[in-house]
Amino acid sequence: MALKRVVVVGGTHGNEWGGIFLLRRELAQVSVETYPFQLDTCLANPGATRANRRYLDQDLNRSFVAAELAQPELPAYEAQRAQVLARELGDADFLLDLHNTTANMGLTLILSRPDALTDPLTRQLCAHALRQDTRVRLYTNPVPLAESPYLPSVARRDLTLEVGPMAHGTLRAELYHATRKLVFDLLDYLARWEKGTAPRYTGELPVYAHLQNVDYPRTATGELDAMVHPDLQDRDFEPLLPGAPLFQDFSSHTLTYQGSETVWPVFINEQAYYEKHFAMSLTRLETYPL
Amino acid sequence: MALKRVVVVGGTHGNEWGGIFLLRRELAQVSVETYPFQLDTCLANPGATRANRRYLDQDLNRSFVAAELAQPELPAYEAQRAQVLARELGDADFLLDLHNTTANMGLTLILSRPDALTDPLTRQLCAHALRQDTRVRLYTNPVPLAESPYLPSVARRDLTLEVGPMAHGTLRAELYHATRKLVFDLLDYLARWEKGTAPRYTGELPVYAHLQNVDYPRTATGELDAMVHPDLQDRDFEPLLPGAPLFQDFSSHTLTYQGSETVWPVFINEQAYYEKHFAMSLTRLETYPL
Repeated sequence: MALKRVVVVGGTHGNEWGGIFLLRRELAQVSVETYPFQLDTCLANPGATRANRRYLDQDLNRSFVAAELAQPELPAYEAQRAQVLARELGDADFLLDLHNTTANMGLTLILSRPDALTDPLTRQLCAHALRQDTRVRLYTNPVPLAESPYLPSVARRDLTLEVGPMAHGTLRAELYHATRKLVFDLLDYLARWEKGTAPRYTGELPVYAHLQNVDYPRTATGELDAMVHPDLQDRDFEPLLPGAPLFQDFSSHTLTYQGSETVWPVFINEQAYYEKHFAMSLTRLETYPL
Repeated sequence: MALKRVVVVGGTHGNEWGGIFLLRRELAQVSVETYPFQLDTCLANPGATRANRRYLDQDLNRSFVAAELAQPELPAYEAQRAQVLARELGDADFLLDLHNTTANMGLTLILSRPDALTDPLTRQLCAHALRQDTRVRLYTNPVPLAESPYLPSVARRDLTLEVGPMAHGTLRAELYHATRKLVFDLLDYLARWEKGTAPRYTGELPVYAHLQNVDYPRTATGELDAMVHPDLQDRDFEPLLPGAPLFQDFSSHTLTYQGSETVWPVFINEQAYYEKHFAMSLTRLETYPL
């Protein structure tokens, strides 16, 4: 499949500034001759971006389930925006969606398409990304396309880039520039792929495969009853062993991880996931042959 | 002046969770016999707390200017709430207002009353606080009471506690527990003061005295044109020398500090101050005799 159109998306969440500023300050100025494909940018949620909020009515990145896209009368702002974006982005051969997180995720590429790792380009692109910055990680969380609520699912191929830790509604210069470098590295690889000059990597990809989300301990009425344990805070992608500290309650008591296998938590203490009832997601470190 | 009523305030900004949870989980449960004064708690902005936003219509902590309090018909939610709070908190002999910041402020006590450091109790309480945690700092930013927009200005004495770095709408366990310990240390000192058994400290207080706020570089249309320089990020309360890196623009160029004297920046890259057009505040380190 040729790469005719590549789209870089920012502002899917209106308070995640890394992608929003990268679009405004860099990508919107790229000359049309630079790449052998049409490079477009898309500010996904202009209403939430103007309000400097994650969303206005509902999470745009949970608004792309096929059954909901089939209902053009849904009232939420983001449901309407999803209608528009599904039409505008459906012919993208590759879509890169730029996000930020308060979790210490470094530069994490999320693969949510079930066939992502069997696609030669996506696989090679991930291998290329891993060589560009030591903080690059691959997190697979496959969802069948028809059920996928995620914006990038409307394109033919996609990756989501999660960069952190960065508080929503702020920029951290070092992470901004690391994002900028990685995005141009990825575009460069796509260009070389299209021209047939891309390096082909061999060996294995380290992949953090999603197992489950874990909520905070809560009271009988659903209120937060503990926090991420200080020993786990900021330790995304590090192994969590059975019996290790997981949460600390408001009286300083430790709650330990009760699982029987070692897991690798990600999205630890992400701000936007309190309302989704996730304190973190647990993954298993696997390898995938190139 | 006897201490008859002490009030601990949280949620002046509805997405600063440290104080909100400390009120709910600890202070609301304190027995009336614990202290020789009436200890009350106050969730200052219940509307914004429910919405998990800093404010609904305007910053509550800029809504206490006397001339505005004299206008009970002002339409904003926070203007109305200020009317209520001015009445409810006006007889507090001591008010402690709990805040969080995305800046690396540790446990900073802000003194905004012009006479704060000439008040023997406030001075001794600050000396006591400095001995409880190595991250305690004193930041003076005096505003004449009649012009003060700050909530605590309605009480007879006050301190504001700024704790960070903590992303708004999140909790970090270690900082939560450090806040809890310091608040109880302060209440304990107030109790001993009232009983006449408080230790009296001698020597000098290190004080970071406010000089000026510094905005980000901006484009002709007012858009952000640079970020806090990576070398300065998270370096609150460290000396910034003439010629040192201050900002980094979107093309990675460094902008240096052009002042002629060494200053100590605070509130570096606080999320809520982008809209106020402050990248940081500059202070001068001084000492104040006890």
